[in-house]
Amino acid sequence: MTVELVDGLSAEEFKLAFRHHPAGVAVITADAGHGPVGLTASSVFSVSADPAVLVFSVSGSSSSAPTLNAADTVVVHLLLSDHIDIAKLCATSGINRFEDTTIWDRLPTGEPYFKNAQARIRGRVINKMPIGDSTVFAVHALEADIPDEDPASNPLVYHNRSWHHLGDHSRL
Amino acid sequence: MTVELVDGLSAEEFKLAFRHHPAGVAVITADAGHGPVGLTASSVFSVSADPAVLVFSVSGSSSSAPTLNAADTVVVHLLLSDHIDIAKLCATSGINRFEDTTIWDRLPTGEPYFKNAQARIRGRVINKMPIGDSTVFAVHALEADIPDEDPASNPLVYHNRSWHHLGDHSRL
Repeated sequence: MTVELVDGLSAEEFKLAFRHHPAGVAVITADAGHGPVGLTASSVFSVSADPAVLVFSVSGSSSSAPTLNAADTVVVHLLLSDHIDIAKLCATSGINRFEDTTIWDRLPTGEPYFKNAQARIRGRVINKMPIGDSTVFAVHALEADIPDEDPASNPLVYHNRSWHHLGDHSRL
Repeated sequence: MTVELVDGLSAEEFKLAFRHHPAGVAVITADAGHGPVGLTASSVFSVSADPAVLVFSVSGSSSSAPTLNAADTVVVHLLLSDHIDIAKLCATSGINRFEDTTIWDRLPTGEPYFKNAQARIRGRVINKMPIGDSTVFAVHALEADIPDEDPASNPLVYHNRSWHHLGDHSRL
């Protein structure tokens, strides 16, 4: 950031405001040549359909940040509530998130991915916007693996430090 | 975008993948000197708490895009399900979204806002990342108006072209 940011909200007030803002849950994986990383993110959204571009943000304090900053390509998994174990796995610090080799594999192009988690999008990092200690990544979607099931079924949502799922029970 | 993006996903496939990804709902308002605009967005997320910075994206085809591109400051309303009328109002084309003057007012600093919709954050645009015909805005949060009620109560979610609400009924 070239501008110095003064007189802004405190971190406490800002976090309190965003406790009112839920988000879909994604897991982002990559390997820049030094082993796989996986990160649970509630910051993925679609910016443009043509070209097909999504964004997400990564905190500089995340253990996955060095690999994601070095990676040319990433895999973004958009999670259903069935995949909550993978969301929790990739949100837990101080563990080897890839220890159980039965749950992940590599795409023909080399990127690690969780076999059971869809929809899944492989994409190329095309731009980055640094903000404080964090970075917003823009990713051009190259390939997708989309489940056959109804997309209305049971997506995972993170809100106010709790996990939720959507379905007919939550529809307005 | 200076890079030409080739061999990406089609717009149809990309939209299909994102039908699996829910999002919290926000309304963004601004006035760059030519009257108020309001835009319903499912693309707001917090990037950094210190400094307090959020991002959102705006399609170039949105009627609010010229004003948002010219505005120095904006108001971001993070919506509860009680505010679904405002979400629908600011997602409807071809109407005057500010016709009912009883539901909105101006902050002392001049920005239009919807009186009944909180949490509400006023912020300054500090960076923009163009992506195709869209733009990702980075906004430094300056002030917030946060409701007293429990943030677990009833936030609004948009998913697969439907409105949902969270609460104890949706908790995992």
